[in-house]
Parts: sequence; structure tokens; C-alpha cells
Amino acid sequence: MSDGSKPKMESGIGQRRAQARGQQNAAYADRRSEILAAAAKLFKSQGFRGTSLVHIADQVGTDRASLYYYFSSKEELFDVLVTDVVKKNLATAEGIRDSADPAPEKLRKLIVGLMESYAEHYPFLYVYLQENMAHVAPKRQAWARQMRQVNRRYETAITDIIRMGIDEGSIKAAGEPWVLAYGVMGMVSWTHRWFNPNTSEVDARAIGESYAEVILAGLAAERG
Amino acid sequence: MSDGSKPKMESGIGQRRAQARGQQNAAYADRRSEILAAAAKLFKSQGFRGTSLVHIADQVGTDRASLYYYFSSKEELFDVLVTDVVKKNLATAEGIRDSADPAPEKLRKLIVGLMESYAEHYPFLYVYLQENMAHVAPKRQAWARQMRQVNRRYETAITDIIRMGIDEGSIKAAGEPWVLAYGVMGMVSWTHRWFNPNTSEVDARAIGESYAEVILAGLAAERG
Repeated sequence: MSDGSKPKMESGIGQRRAQARGQQNAAYADRRSEILAAAAKLFKSQGFRGTSLVHIADQVGTDRASLYYYFSSKEELFDVLVTDVVKKNLATAEGIRDSADPAPEKLRKLIVGLMESYAEHYPFLYVYLQENMAHVAPKRQAWARQMRQVNRRYETAITDIIRMGIDEGSIKAAGEPWVLAYGVMGMVSWTHRWFNPNTSEVDARAIGESYAEVILAGLAAERG
Repeated sequence: MSDGSKPKMESGIGQRRAQARGQQNAAYADRRSEILAAAAKLFKSQGFRGTSLVHIADQVGTDRASLYYYFSSKEELFDVLVTDVVKKNLATAEGIRDSADPAPEKLRKLIVGLMESYAEHYPFLYVYLQENMAHVAPKRQAWARQMRQVNRRYETAITDIIRMGIDEGSIKAAGEPWVLAYGVMGMVSWTHRWFNPNTSEVDARAIGESYAEVILAGLAAERG
């Protein structure tokens, strides 16, 4: 097929893409956002595997070659969509940790917020959770490394909250703070195996509140 | 390569394999167990992907062709190893559910037992958890279907225990029983992302007991 000529085309397009991004061209940025929104919609309805660059190009009324001027691949589109949400979630979690709330209230906000985020950005965060960061394609290694770091900071934020609670006497040391943090994370993140906000009888907020209730009662310090 | 002749060889060997199994030959069964033990050891130390049938044959002092007399593929070896453990775990969970213990004690036994089982059979159950049952190779569809059924029964056993606890007044209805059951499952099974019994500072039993303590306190019925 045309595989032999593709790298050359890619590299010419790649230069123009890099240039356009560097120039902070408003029309370019708008068009890029439009493509991202179309890709998000298609990934959601047809899944990542079921969506091709041609589908995305069709959706925004252009062709695949023109799309390369904005994104190098379907993978890049997915990474951009997921990266923003994952980073926003981390900022939210760190904001909660650094707030003046008592630790149990921080945990509640984090658990309910994370569940709501899974539903709001369905299915991106779940696809992200399912992807084994250690096994992503070689050309996405830098992205995977960055995401692993974000994951670690997220887990650290939960661990910090639990440690603060133990220190302030509001949370019971039912185990190592990091073991408890991973348990909280697991309870919420395991939903990627079974929760679909479009078909579930129970909504994300209700699930988050159930889990927060169990965790908060489960970690409540015994009243002296 | 020799792919063209493989199905023919396979089918001849396959018939002899089927015959040998049918005859309940003690020597055959012993040798089969020996191969299973060797495979288990190699999957554990080198991982499933890092292990080939040649490695396994070397370990038991035979060659790959002779191995086909016992197992059709590396996948079959893995399935046999995992299937037994998964079914044993289900029997344990259903036994706990059907025991005379109060529901909270049932939950505690199930959580601690499951964590210990993850460590005892490391890394088989984790590799199994990581495998997306929906995406297994077409020739393993029957196995995947059977495993999905076992998973469903396992989840049903936890849901039943929670429902029993709500009925007997020992467990608080902090949400739909199945949502709570999936939360318990998630807390324990998420360990596949981070727990390695060979390197962890905290052992499986301690993790299980931490999580059981949180879940039991979290679901404890309020004292009237």
C-alpha cells in the first residue's frame, strides 16, 4: 500500500503542524478544539477501536490528510482528551487535600468527585484505567511516563489526606495510610469493570455517596 | 515456516492426548501434574509472556513435541492452572455464604481469604484479573464464558452476604447491596495493580485485615 510514502508525508505535515501550534493561531486552535470535540463524541459512541481518523474527518467535514495538520494520529487525539481530564482530576484532588476541611470531609469530596468525573468523562477515564501503562506502544512511552507520575501524585494526595486525619484524630489507623489509600482508590476505580452511566440504574453520585459513607464510617476514629 | 504442517501434527497428537486422558493412566496424570507445576513456577518467575513451551519442556527434561502429548498450548496450561484456583475460590466464597456465621464475620472471612489467595497463587489470579475476558482469543471463548459465569457467582455470593446482613440487622444498607458488593470486590481486587507478595512490606493477611476492618466498621448497623 502507501505505507512507504507515509513517513515522508507525515514529516512534512508534522513540521507544518508544529509551526501552526507555535504561532498560537486562533483559527488553528479553534479548529483543533472542534476536532477534539468530534473525536470525543465518536470515541464515546463507537469506542476507541471502532473509530478511525476517517470517521473523525467526516464528522468535521474534512479529509484525513487535512486532519494530519492538527493531529498526528488517533492515539494523539485520545492522549490529548485523556491527559487534560486526568490532570484536572489531579488538580482537584490536590486542591481538596490542601483545603481547610477536616480529613473525613476531604475524603468524601474526593470519592464522590472522582465517581462523578468517571461518569462525566465516560468512557475516557475508564479506557485510561484499563490501559496497562507498562504496555503502551513504544512511541507513547513519554506520555505513559507522565501519566504514571500523575497517578502517583493522585495516590499520594489520598494517602496525605488519610495521614492528616490520623494526625488530627478524625481517622482511625486501620492500617498503613498508603494501603488504606489504595483501598479507597480500588473501591472507586473498580467501577471501570461494571459501571456505565448510560445504562446503570444507580447514578455516579449515588455510588460515590454509598462508597464515601462506607469509607467514612469505616475509618471513623473511635470516640474516646 | 512450518505453520502449514502444524494443524495436522496437532490433530494426531490431539487424538493421542484425548485418548491418554480418557484412560485415566496414572503415569500420564503424574507427568501432567509435573508439567503443570513446572509451568506454574516459570509463569511466576518469568511471566506468562516471557515463558515459552520450550522453557517448560526444558524444565521437565523433555522437548516441545512431547509436551504436546499433555497440553495443546501454553494458553491451555495457564487456563488449567487458573481455572482450578478460581473455582476453588468460588467454592470457598459460597461455603462462607452458606455457613452459620453472622454476615459481618462472613464478609471478614471472604475478604481476608481472597487477599491470602491472591498471594498464595501469585501472580495467576492477578494475571487473570488483568485479562479482559471480553477480549480473549476466539479459541478461548468457551473458557472465557465459563470464567465470566464463575465471576458472576462470586459477586452474587458477596451480594447475598450483604443482603443477609441487612435482613438480620447486622449490616447497614449504605446503598444497593450489589453496589456495596462491587465496592468490596474492588477494594480487594484493585491490589492486582500494586501488590506483590514477594516485595511488599505489608503482607496479604495484614492488607486483608485492614480492608475487612474498614468494610466491617463501614457497614456496621447503627446501634438502635
